[in-house]
Amino acid sequence: QKAMNKQKQQTAKRVAAAPTDIPDPISRNESKEVDVTLRPEEVTAEVEDGVTFNYMTYNGQVPGPMIRVRKGDTVNLTFENPAENDMPHNVDFHAAAGPGGGAEATMTAPGETAHLKFEATYPGAYIYHCAVPNMDMHISAGMFGIILVEPEEGLPEVDHEFYFGQHEIYTDKRPGEKGQHNFDIESMKREEPTYVVMNGEKYACTPDKYGAGKVQTGDTARVFFVTGGPNLTSSFHPIGNVWEKLWPEGSLTTKPQTHIQTKQVAPGSTTVATMGFPVPGAFKLVDHSLTRVARKGCMAIVAAEGE
Amino acid sequence: QKAMNKQKQQTAKRVAAAPTDIPDPISRNESKEVDVTLRPEEVTAEVEDGVTFNYMTYNGQVPGPMIRVRKGDTVNLTFENPAENDMPHNVDFHAAAGPGGGAEATMTAPGETAHLKFEATYPGAYIYHCAVPNMDMHISAGMFGIILVEPEEGLPEVDHEFYFGQHEIYTDKRPGEKGQHNFDIESMKREEPTYVVMNGEKYACTPDKYGAGKVQTGDTARVFFVTGGPNLTSSFHPIGNVWEKLWPEGSLTTKPQTHIQTKQVAPGSTTVATMGFPVPGAFKLVDHSLTRVARKGCMAIVAAEGE
Amino acid sequence: QKAMNKQKQQTAKRVAAAPTDIPDPISRNESKEVDVTLRPEEVTAEVEDGVTFNYMTYNGQVPGPMIRVRKGDTVNLTFENPAENDMPHNVDFHAAAGPGGGAEATMTAPGETAHLKFEATYPGAYIYHCAVPNMDMHISAGMFGIILVEPEEGLPEVDHEFYFGQHEIYTDKRPGEKGQHNFDIESMKREEPTYVVMNGEKYACTPDKYGAGKVQTGDTARVFFVTGGPNLTSSFHPIGNVWEKLWPEGSLTTKPQTHIQTKQVAPGSTTVATMGFPVPGAFKLVDHSLTRVARKGCMAIVAAEGE
Ligand SMILES: [Cu+2]
Ligand SMILES: [Cu+2]
Ligand SMILES: [Cu+2]
Ligand SMILES: [Cu+2]
Ligand SMILES: [Cu+2]
Ligand SMILES: [Cu+2]
Ligand code: NA
Ligand code: NA
Ligand code: NA
Ligand code: NA
Ligand code: NA
Ligand code: NA
Ligand SMILES: [Zn+2]
Ligand SMILES: [Zn+2]
Ligand SMILES: [Zn+2]
Ligand SMILES: [Zn+2]
Ligand SMILES: [Zn+2]
Ligand SMILES: [Zn+2]
Ligand SMILES: [Zn+2]
Ligand SMILES: [Zn+2]
Ligand SMILES: [Zn+2]
Repeated sequence: QKAMNKQKQQTAKRVAAAPTDIPDPISRNESKEVDVTLRPEEVTAEVEDGVTFNYMTYNGQVPGPMIRVRKGDTVNLTFENPAENDMPHNVDFHAAAGPGGGAEATMTAPGETAHLKFEATYPGAYIYHCAVPNMDMHISAGMFGIILVEPEEGLPEVDHEFYFGQHEIYTDKRPGEKGQHNFDIESMKREEPTYVVMNGEKYACTPDKYGAGKVQTGDTARVFFVTGGPNLTSSFHPIGNVWEKLWPEGSLTTKPQTHIQTKQVAPGSTTVATMGFPVPGAFKLVDHSLTRVARKGCMAIVAAEGE
Repeated sequence: QKAMNKQKQQTAKRVAAAPTDIPDPISRNESKEVDVTLRPEEVTAEVEDGVTFNYMTYNGQVPGPMIRVRKGDTVNLTFENPAENDMPHNVDFHAAAGPGGGAEATMTAPGETAHLKFEATYPGAYIYHCAVPNMDMHISAGMFGIILVEPEEGLPEVDHEFYFGQHEIYTDKRPGEKGQHNFDIESMKREEPTYVVMNGEKYACTPDKYGAGKVQTGDTARVFFVTGGPNLTSSFHPIGNVWEKLWPEGSLTTKPQTHIQTKQVAPGSTTVATMGFPVPGAFKLVDHSLTRVARKGCMAIVAAEGE
Repeated sequence: QKAMNKQKQQTAKRVAAAPTDIPDPISRNESKEVDVTLRPEEVTAEVEDGVTFNYMTYNGQVPGPMIRVRKGDTVNLTFENPAENDMPHNVDFHAAAGPGGGAEATMTAPGETAHLKFEATYPGAYIYHCAVPNMDMHISAGMFGIILVEPEEGLPEVDHEFYFGQHEIYTDKRPGEKGQHNFDIESMKREEPTYVVMNGEKYACTPDKYGAGKVQTGDTARVFFVTGGPNLTSSFHPIGNVWEKLWPEGSLTTKPQTHIQTKQVAPGSTTVATMGFPVPGAFKLVDHSLTRVARKGCMAIVAAEGE
């Protein structure tokens, strides 16, 4: 915690992942080896205007880069812990079969690089996250993302795809209090976060910050959603809309639910869900534990333009 | 919060919705326009004997009136914010497709009336709730209910239907402490309610208060259940019974689960579930987070009479 | 609470149930009467080294003995409250149809014995638990377990079966603080436990304590998991693995999900899930609310040996 709260980190303008920064859908009919590089980066950045926090990220973004492979592919991971870091890091893929999901093989001190190869055998959207002993702290600092394992036959076509991740930030100050917020282990033990955010920052994916996701009226979209946690369940709801089809727990081998208003996504789990846009307007994606929305920063927007 | 806690409100004897106050099942084979009136009413009433609270309600009851339409029907809503109120209110229907689910169109100051028309296109039981900026506070004060959208073919016949809604009340006093309880925003931020109730008041639908729901041994019943929240998930369980069939998330286009002991119902979601009564007796419906039952008021009863 | 915290109880070396102490799978083709004896035992034991707590248990273990019957069987229960106890106890079976699930019939003071007979009519894994008025306290002290009702055709063959139960312990001290921890009702009201454990003790089923569950590489296993609560949901995850098939809410008449990374198991509910062991190593079973794992004691291990 001390190491985490000291001020010698890199400064970033933005940690929020762009919700459209997603690899293309897979059209291959055969397996291949997919090269992936993850770099744990410790950076100071703003949670909201005037509020800074020492994030830990994969590749400088929250959630970390979305990885996309096909069932049967081999993930060929390079894990580079930069020398400028202060802490060891690693990565546990829920899509990897084997103790720790790769955490032991990728455990690295600053300045070290590790390699990991694994075959992706279960179709679904799986979380990956840091799994050092203080894993709850590292996830709360931003170290989580999605690896999508497409089924062999691929996914149904949609017009747009979006990528969002929710997590909790536990600090020693109150939401909105200006200045540097240090990580606070006591509020994490009580599971009482200061901020609950989508894509790492308060209202990151809204017009007031980096902009909403954009579609045209009549389009379809698929949302990949991950709850990093480390502790709270998201009750994931699209205001003014429903999840047309929703794959519980991110499993793509289980039949989807239809017309779902609100779906719980556990910490350390995901959901894959589609939505339609029969009418134009701004559709807010929220955790329906609404105090987190109204007072703690948890919201993203997808806006449909055109009549 | 100040506006909410001042004492010039109307006084009500009872805010608890009668669990049998449900529109009749639909037998129509064609769509129609259904007129609905919702009146946000700010009233002071008892949470339990000697404990008063400034509720906000739809039509004076918690949960608000159950609305029942058929897929394809048009809801023709009149939304009347009475002049005696102190606050703006609105309504967001999870069954309405469009930004805010109708919240913008119905946003009204005291003394104003608004109109909203929408087509109900997804079969299921959907929550409606107030969605002003302080929406967590308004829901915690009682502003939520169910709109049921029956599938075109209707619902299976049962002998009885019941309507229950769970929500949290956050106050500045302890459970049972006599006098006026004021709304407390800090405990809401911690998600630590003073009361967790079904139908707005402590043990409202039990013999000690307004009476249990009543069936005959051998009957079947369907329960419409909504978690208003604003924050906590209900682990909904019928003591001494199971949910024979249960439609997760209130979706009526998804296959039901069977023989379910306990089902999580997220804040901002619902469930539809059936139960049988092979033996007589009082069946307590609870949130199986049992401290809420034993210490915070969360229970309703359905009693089967006859051998 | 006073009665619970006084020191005249029996001392036990261990309350953790052995995860392999499970009745054999059922191969019968006809119903029978199954005799079961439950003894509520109040015992002082260690949560971790140097930390003692006054547990309440069924038969001295947490979770209580796993009971295994076949749909249509009659459970013939003897419930013996030993004279050395200080408190009344009973048992509520979620598998029993009838008010209280047997709680009234089994309500006994110390020194009393009660009898209960019921037919198990719904296939599934159901929790049983103490249901005296302070039921949240009794469950938090350890009084919960599983009764498995096999479907008539039995369960698919697996190489191993394991039995785990998660619950929260609320005390007046901090995790790891040496000495006697007394039960603390205030932290239970806040739903902020001191410990969250699997099988009653910190890291009970791991090599540092009583040993991991053991399988051979290539084996299959079925896990019976119960969340006693009394309040928190478990986000149940096998690190480095997935739940190959998972029966939500423990219902065995509902289609299982497949390839599930993390599944919420509500307090007062269960799950039945299978896992494979394609590679050797130690697979940690956790609640993915990871602060409970890293700081409060919640983990069990199943280890696969052989290449
Ligand atoms: Cu990390
Ligand atoms: Cu994980
Ligand atoms: Cu309102
Ligand atoms: Cu809503
Ligand atoms: Cu007990
Ligand atoms: Cu129970
Ligand atoms: Na729904
Ligand atoms: Na709290
Ligand atoms: Na209520
Ligand atoms: Na069940
Ligand atoms: Na808490
Ligand atoms: Na999954
Ligand atoms: Zn790390
Ligand atoms: Zn649809
Ligand atoms: Zn309002
Ligand atoms: Zn009847
Ligand atoms: Zn049945
Ligand atoms: Zn007891
Ligand atoms: Zn607290
Ligand atoms: Zn074996
Ligand atoms: Zn598989």
